[in-house]
Amino acid sequence: MDIKKLLVPNDSKIVFYIADGLGGLPHPDFEFKTELEYANTPNLDNLAKKSVLGRTIPVRHGITPGSGPAHFGLFGYDPATFEVGRGVLEALGVNFPLKKGDIAIRCNFATLDEEGKIIDRRAGRIPTEEAIPVIEKIKDAVGGKIEDVEIFVFPVKEYRFGVVLRGHGLYDCIPDTDPQETGVKPLPVEATCEKGKKTERILARFVEIAHDAIKDEKRANGFLLRGISSLPDLEPFPEKFKLKSLALANYPMYKGLARLVGMDTPDAGSEFGDLIKMLREKWNDYDFFFVHYKWTDKAGEDGDFLKKVHYIEEFDSYLKDVLALEPDVLVITGDHSTPSLWKGHSWHPSPLLLYSKVAGADAATRFTERECRHGYLGMIYAHDLMPIVLANAGRLKKYGA
Amino acid sequence: MDIKKLLVPNDSKIVFYIADGLGGLPHPDFEFKTELEYANTPNLDNLAKKSVLGRTIPVRHGITPGSGPAHFGLFGYDPATFEVGRGVLEALGVNFPLKKGDIAIRCNFATLDEEGKIIDRRAGRIPTEEAIPVIEKIKDAVGGKIEDVEIFVFPVKEYRFGVVLRGHGLYDCIPDTDPQETGVKPLPVEATCEKGKKTERILARFVEIAHDAIKDEKRANGFLLRGISSLPDLEPFPEKFKLKSLALANYPMYKGLARLVGMDTPDAGSEFGDLIKMLREKWNDYDFFFVHYKWTDKAGEDGDFLKKVHYIEEFDSYLKDVLALEPDVLVITGDHSTPSLWKGHSWHPSPLLLYSKVAGADAATRFTERECRHGYLGMIYAHDLMPIVLANAGRLKKYGA
Repeated sequence: MDIKKLLVPNDSKIVFYIADGLGGLPHPDFEFKTELEYANTPNLDNLAKKSVLGRTIPVRHGITPGSGPAHFGLFGYDPATFEVGRGVLEALGVNFPLKKGDIAIRCNFATLDEEGKIIDRRAGRIPTEEAIPVIEKIKDAVGGKIEDVEIFVFPVKEYRFGVVLRGHGLYDCIPDTDPQETGVKPLPVEATCEKGKKTERILARFVEIAHDAIKDEKRANGFLLRGISSLPDLEPFPEKFKLKSLALANYPMYKGLARLVGMDTPDAGSEFGDLIKMLREKWNDYDFFFVHYKWTDKAGEDGDFLKKVHYIEEFDSYLKDVLALEPDVLVITGDHSTPSLWKGHSWHPSPLLLYSKVAGADAATRFTERECRHGYLGMIYAHDLMPIVLANAGRLKKYGA
Repeated sequence: MDIKKLLVPNDSKIVFYIADGLGGLPHPDFEFKTELEYANTPNLDNLAKKSVLGRTIPVRHGITPGSGPAHFGLFGYDPATFEVGRGVLEALGVNFPLKKGDIAIRCNFATLDEEGKIIDRRAGRIPTEEAIPVIEKIKDAVGGKIEDVEIFVFPVKEYRFGVVLRGHGLYDCIPDTDPQETGVKPLPVEATCEKGKKTERILARFVEIAHDAIKDEKRANGFLLRGISSLPDLEPFPEKFKLKSLALANYPMYKGLARLVGMDTPDAGSEFGDLIKMLREKWNDYDFFFVHYKWTDKAGEDGDFLKKVHYIEEFDSYLKDVLALEPDVLVITGDHSTPSLWKGHSWHPSPLLLYSKVAGADAATRFTERECRHGYLGMIYAHDLMPIVLANAGRLKKYGA
């Protein structure tokens, strides 16, 4: 249902305090405890006694989300109903200011033989320093424009670079040119729908010019187009929920995701403490604050249980500063689980804490996966959280009479 | 959402160990325990300590499923979105090798008076031995074909027999000819859609020939057509989930349901031990094993609490053999509940156990309806189980980047 007509703005302050990849699994080497259970988290546990717990399913049962779908769920959009292409995410990740209608492409440098057949789909994984001058050659040859379409080319990391097309009448119905195997030529640029014909023509010309410009390179003498995509058509978060919204994150990817839904995303610095400082400074200027802690996910991906425990404790210690601001509604959860036992994102529900004066009643004494199992909020889809939060903030009026 | 593009095959082995009608209700004559609580189940309880529990809703809240919908849910198809007709289920139940496009009909012998009006809608419930020679007369008269359509006629049980039409351009938009009352004639065969005109013509001719052939019978001198239906258009399970799949069941109905979704369904024997033996023999040949234990449901239908307890204990004892094979993912649940207190299928959620190395965390010490209430998996639709199972098997890659 559309809750927009139920929205009633007020002065309440809402904070999403998010630890990336927070959820974990019982680890056989650590007394079959999860990272949250093993960690010393006095602030989280104390808050748990005054809050209600539950669990969020990021997308659907069994589905392991990437960062994109996982964040869209928390932002209140059902991530099973749309997909954001690799090209868009890559552009967001390097902070490229994508606009509606832009076509974003992730490119991999590749090594081709004399006949143009692929020898190496990643050009020997050349380092960024080696890629940059090749990218410059492409930029020079293309000259920023093909027909009436602006062309942006920018480095990403190692053998990867990004391309963005900006102009009228562009459409993203073009599959990858990466054949996913060596010994064959890159696939031609071919639109699968009529609306994509102009994009096909521009991209094919781009490939022609660029390949010609780098044909004498040793390793990066070719490239493959992947994830050709445009921004999804999402109603901006500040309008959808009538919330002046600030996202605080250290990593460009997460700022990019928040900017994609229209949140303000200032550069706050590279330390988590910088985000907390800015949260304090901007407290009077916004209704909604999304605060993103990245390091729990990284430690989980590394399979480093104790490092994840350490970062959970850091996340816990900063919670004091958030509480000092006295938010009306505070949500603590992960965007998805990253158990160090699994060494990657996983499908397991995320532990969830909701604090407000009218949240409900729980019996939990700690904030852990197991305690959350018995929580008041039960197991809900991440995208169902926003209406609950708005209700707790007194921002949703009665539905029907 | 469509998970097909997320599937990544691997070597994992998945077992669904299913007790038909497993779930029960607290019984006032047995200390208000359920059958599972009353039974001595050391293997299930021991496994519960290492697994996560939960509950499955077969179709929707409050809906009592037949065997068809209940199994389709477990197989990962939402049983609320399609129906399988009685004719198809009856044909599956006697192991008739139905093909896509076949029209299957369940027929009841009936007794008609001289004017052709129905005296008895079940022909005095004549026994199978009495029905078989009458069915032979129909077969002889029809001669296996009407126009270009093959006609199969076969006994089912007592006064019931089956008819299958096989040919081009057949369609199942034809209601029952059973008027559901006596003192009136059977309804004419009448298609309710244009596409069903050929089927109408063939069936009307069949009725004419068959009635003429048996008009001198004492009791079975007429018959009624019911559940005129064709196979639902389901993507086969082995393709839908990329799993080479074996279904082991003693009863033809369950083999039929599994065959309908494309699982291999060899004849394993009539004892449950035969299924377990074949499970062992075929272990290296398949990825997915569906093992069906029938007797818990039968005892529940009979309202025999202690017999159901006995069969649960037998089901428990065979679990040892399943565990000895070391499946990567093991699911134990029912297709629906059949409480002996209710003496029939019921709508109550089924107790659910999921074992895998990365399943999650629980605190259960027994596998019972009450313990499952607190389980990690919560209460889920049966058809949401397959994605969770595939995730636990490492067969689902990340959704989005």
